[in-house]
Amino acid sequence: MGSPTAPRAVVLAGGVGGARFAAGLIQVLPPEQVTVIVNVGDDFTHFGLHISPDLDTVCYTLAGRENPATGWGRADETWHALETVAELGGPTWFRLGDRDLGLHLERTRRLQAGEPLSAVTRAVCRAWGVRATVLPVTDDPVPTVVDTEEHGRLAFQDYFVRLRSRPRVRGFAFQGVERARPAPGVLEALAAAEAVLVAPSNPWVSIDPLLAVPGVRDALASKTVVAVSPLIGGRAVKGPAAKMFAELGIEPSALAVAQHYAGLIQGLVVDESDAALAPRITATTGQAVFITDAWMPTPERRRALAQATWDFAQALRLARSLD
Amino acid sequence: MGSPTAPRAVVLAGGVGGARFAAGLIQVLPPEQVTVIVNVGDDFTHFGLHISPDLDTVCYTLAGRENPATGWGRADETWHALETVAELGGPTWFRLGDRDLGLHLERTRRLQAGEPLSAVTRAVCRAWGVRATVLPVTDDPVPTVVDTEEHGRLAFQDYFVRLRSRPRVRGFAFQGVERARPAPGVLEALAAAEAVLVAPSNPWVSIDPLLAVPGVRDALASKTVVAVSPLIGGRAVKGPAAKMFAELGIEPSALAVAQHYAGLIQGLVVDESDAALAPRITATTGQAVFITDAWMPTPERRRALAQATWDFAQALRLARSLD
Repeated sequence: MGSPTAPRAVVLAGGVGGARFAAGLIQVLPPEQVTVIVNVGDDFTHFGLHISPDLDTVCYTLAGRENPATGWGRADETWHALETVAELGGPTWFRLGDRDLGLHLERTRRLQAGEPLSAVTRAVCRAWGVRATVLPVTDDPVPTVVDTEEHGRLAFQDYFVRLRSRPRVRGFAFQGVERARPAPGVLEALAAAEAVLVAPSNPWVSIDPLLAVPGVRDALASKTVVAVSPLIGGRAVKGPAAKMFAELGIEPSALAVAQHYAGLIQGLVVDESDAALAPRITATTGQAVFITDAWMPTPERRRALAQATWDFAQALRLARSLD
Repeated sequence: MGSPTAPRAVVLAGGVGGARFAAGLIQVLPPEQVTVIVNVGDDFTHFGLHISPDLDTVCYTLAGRENPATGWGRADETWHALETVAELGGPTWFRLGDRDLGLHLERTRRLQAGEPLSAVTRAVCRAWGVRATVLPVTDDPVPTVVDTEEHGRLAFQDYFVRLRSRPRVRGFAFQGVERARPAPGVLEALAAAEAVLVAPSNPWVSIDPLLAVPGVRDALASKTVVAVSPLIGGRAVKGPAAKMFAELGIEPSALAVAQHYAGLIQGLVVDESDAALAPRITATTGQAVFITDAWMPTPERRRALAQATWDFAQALRLARSLD
């Protein structure tokens, strides 16, 4: 199984759901054996600063510095910079806390000095004692664009935060992704991993942009890949995933998630409330289904879900090796 | 003397000394009749943000939002963003408070959207109820470079803040100033003013860069111009002015200030402790000298110094008109 610090598990992650699942997994495996590959399609420039919301949420959560109430942003946060912006009539729709701003300042400084995003992320994690490896899927800009009925094409944060995911979506584009290269370490981690776990993140705007980076999907072809459904009882725990399925003409459910990931994953973890869908999932996609409590309100439940998902992936891997 | 809102007085200002003097003057004249033209040679980009230290100090002080202990930065400040930068090993030598950062964020956003610095400054002053007009001397970048014995050419904030003005100076350059244009309103305010008051700011790095903008010195030629000596008893109240004179081979004193401004000003306000220099100042430069208490530790003393300087300028103006 390689050296003790070689990655055994790779997590593909978006923001809050991905961060919480990864936080569970580092209670199951030694953190040094976990690599989290994170979506950067939601990165954007605001006030001249480079902001990486999903990367930040993952780093804050793995560092134990996250705001547990929101899932994003820092614990013990203050809002004085944004109060000044408000006094001056500037935009306050993206909630930048003071402690959070410090990361954006330092990341922007390092990027402008020529460091790639992956190196900045490594330095941030090291400074905060994060022992898992956190990698942006790419160091290249791949901004997600949301095509909407009301406003046409919107930058992701305009859609997601400013307009609170209210516009009806028609589709998504990941600008420049065809020329993007996986960040250093991404393909190596995927090659070395015993299993790849797709976190309960938004399939459309967290996982798809990550899979769209050339080389990533190919690297998964020979791996045991298991996903955790972000939809429970047809609803997203957080965010617009269910709404997006519905607006694209697909009934939102764990079955829809299974079909979305058809050909990519061998197993899907679904919530107990979706147990009745298991036969149809397996019948239509060939995926094995593991039924468990898939809601993660506490660290204990994150750990339990990660443990179940890891064990499920190991069982599938063993079964494949016996075929 | 024109409409009630036409400028009667223009102040040429750097940072703390200029801000405090201007704060005194708006207690003497209606603020609407005061225009403060501010040095921008100390502007720089830090963490990707455009920072205008002198402009900020003037705006904070005129808005009553300044930190009275330091003279720069905001009152009731917190430092959480910079704490994060410190955790991440980034540079903390330039003390950016959280409230202060909000201004840099919003200014950077507006500049990147195409607004000139003068328009941003006007919006900031309006938002904070500053009734005096505050103008950057130019909207163009004119970064001050300090030539030093130990480190050669240094960006101004590297010299001034990071190295705490310790290197020995050999000279100064104002990069790009020959192509800079006065900001909208600068030449108009100078043309309309009854008198121009040079604040007790650093002659080398606050006032000279301002005078170097093409058109500004010419606009002063026909005006009554009075300066307040920033040196009291051969020492600067704040900052490296005295040290700079000495390192350039000039004994620091109110006389040195008078000679520095020879040909530009008709009168110099000096502190009581420098009264003995008055005859030599007048003999060598032809300048009239007004002797008063030139230290401004309180709002009352700022008002008194501004009143004395304004009255002195009016007297000189009357005398010139009678010539």
